[in-house]
Amino acid sequence: MLNNKMTELLKVEYPIIQAPMAGGVTTSKLVAEVSNSGGLGMIGAGYMTPNQMREQIKEIKQLTSNPFGINLFVPNEFIVTENEIISANQVLNPIRQQLNLHQKDSFEIPNFNDVFETFIEQIKVVIEENVPICSFTFGIPSKEVITELKQSNIILMGTATTVREAVENEKAGMDIVVAQGSEAGGHRGSFIDGDQESLVGLMSLIPQVVDTISIPVIAAGGIMDGRGLLASICLGAKGVQMGTAFLTCIESGAHKVYKEAILDANEDQTVLTRSFSGKWARGIKNKFILEMQNHETLLPDFPVQNTLTQDIRKTSSAQNNQDFMSLWSGQSPRLAKSQTVESLIKNIIAEAKKINSYI
Amino acid sequence: MLNNKMTELLKVEYPIIQAPMAGGVTTSKLVAEVSNSGGLGMIGAGYMTPNQMREQIKEIKQLTSNPFGINLFVPNEFIVTENEIISANQVLNPIRQQLNLHQKDSFEIPNFNDVFETFIEQIKVVIEENVPICSFTFGIPSKEVITELKQSNIILMGTATTVREAVENEKAGMDIVVAQGSEAGGHRGSFIDGDQESLVGLMSLIPQVVDTISIPVIAAGGIMDGRGLLASICLGAKGVQMGTAFLTCIESGAHKVYKEAILDANEDQTVLTRSFSGKWARGIKNKFILEMQNHETLLPDFPVQNTLTQDIRKTSSAQNNQDFMSLWSGQSPRLAKSQTVESLIKNIIAEAKKINSYI
Repeated sequence: MLNNKMTELLKVEYPIIQAPMAGGVTTSKLVAEVSNSGGLGMIGAGYMTPNQMREQIKEIKQLTSNPFGINLFVPNEFIVTENEIISANQVLNPIRQQLNLHQKDSFEIPNFNDVFETFIEQIKVVIEENVPICSFTFGIPSKEVITELKQSNIILMGTATTVREAVENEKAGMDIVVAQGSEAGGHRGSFIDGDQESLVGLMSLIPQVVDTISIPVIAAGGIMDGRGLLASICLGAKGVQMGTAFLTCIESGAHKVYKEAILDANEDQTVLTRSFSGKWARGIKNKFILEMQNHETLLPDFPVQNTLTQDIRKTSSAQNNQDFMSLWSGQSPRLAKSQTVESLIKNIIAEAKKINSYI
Repeated sequence: MLNNKMTELLKVEYPIIQAPMAGGVTTSKLVAEVSNSGGLGMIGAGYMTPNQMREQIKEIKQLTSNPFGINLFVPNEFIVTENEIISANQVLNPIRQQLNLHQKDSFEIPNFNDVFETFIEQIKVVIEENVPICSFTFGIPSKEVITELKQSNIILMGTATTVREAVENEKAGMDIVVAQGSEAGGHRGSFIDGDQESLVGLMSLIPQVVDTISIPVIAAGGIMDGRGLLASICLGAKGVQMGTAFLTCIESGAHKVYKEAILDANEDQTVLTRSFSGKWARGIKNKFILEMQNHETLLPDFPVQNTLTQDIRKTSSAQNNQDFMSLWSGQSPRLAKSQTVESLIKNIIAEAKKINSYI
């Protein structure tokens, strides 16, 4: 039940991957503890500098001798106009005022070439540090990058939200694909298909993906326990990737206020928003999302909007104020618990085995 | 694995319910064949007159001695203004032109009291004809109606899209609740919670509902085969309700063009629209949905908009033209097959048993 092509490939005991949540959640302790407990710990390096990455990789190697992985954001080209920045600031300034932040009217616009160069530097670090597994979100890297990583025997995982995206990942040479259902918290990994069309629930997504491609498929979205793990395996997945369940663990670096917001939330309190970053993502509805709701389709693309809201998110977080923080969460917050990584993984496996014994 | 509290209650061999699709899909042959094959056939009586209901119930009794069920729409109060009708017609008239239909500028507005009286007449028929199982969509009937049905020993099933809606169903005395995931085709059954908030995928919805209520929970949405059945059971459901899978069966009364549209569709081709009926529903994107997209939030409520689009849907269907028909479908159309009800059910059970033997 729990051992298959994917656990062999990743050299893990259990088919459980800790989702690579960016923004400080995946502390070295969290990643190492997941790997030490038989799962696969993952660094969410999307927003990290190459140096920060290298430092954390070295730290994790001190804490575990088991395999772990790292996730990178594939840079997407973006176009942004001065006017878009001005109007985005116009809707963000009243929020800045509530937080006693300086009003802003201009911004240094991130440059695509810089973003792309950072990505190439990140890839170098992955190779130099010989990280065993590397996964990607927001697209598929170039042939050159894939070939280089493969030559270093790094196992590659892509992200897909539709069958077509899964096929593209397989074609590009990915070893494993993470199928992200509409239940998933945080950023949508979609890179070909439209917004609504790519919001496919896991009950539909997994069987249709596994029928079409040959590489192992990992289910991601709303999975929190042994029930979700076993259900995913029944649907044809080889394992699961879990974000929210690890986010509220003791070892996670998520802000206390953020953890509490998830522990208090219900299944109908998450919504999709692009107001924080310019890309659609699922989080708990808060004041920021509500105040931005009527403007969100007009905001600049990722990563521009993400840069614009940085001061707001940081200050809100420093003030222990959940109103303007990005509270990413999947659709199963009622199942979240405050516990250690070790007990989370032990409980998942015990529950899955128990269900499997009586069904 | 396949026998539980719910199969005992419904007196069926397998935990498979054929979803009560309204609008001519649930022919007597389909309903009877499902019940004869060990599942529970259901009449989609939402749009039927009491006489049509009585006729079909009598017909089905000739075709099966096994239990079957019927589904009714709980009437919701609606407010509609002359102006809403005028502007809805303004956007519908160009479509009428494409179908060589008469332009319309007024309409007899359905009256809530009439709708409610019909519902009470429908309930009478269910009792008089002693239909063993009755399910409800769009809300919970009054205490009086529930008491009357229960006194006649009719088993009651409610529909919920969130935990809160499931709790309300249990409180009201329902024997079983159908938890409708965001994957589901056709109308959303939501009656308390908002549009986006109630779009919870089954992987999240089922465990959170079963943790909160005590009556048996049925999973509905995107389930097409033995994988979906077994996954639902792992998540804690006692059975499944399947629509799209039965819709493309030989015995279903769906239009040939409609069946073909599903058999040709992919998982990313369904969208939510309220343009056909005034209530949100999931269907395959076609010309009608696209042409109405920018107007859909301004259209009158159900059932007014449904009445307004009737001539368009009927004529499109009579012309074998899928462009303006409501092509309701869940998110798993790639798994749909043209087969008999008997083989569909046999295949589901065989597949579920096979997976259960090796996981």
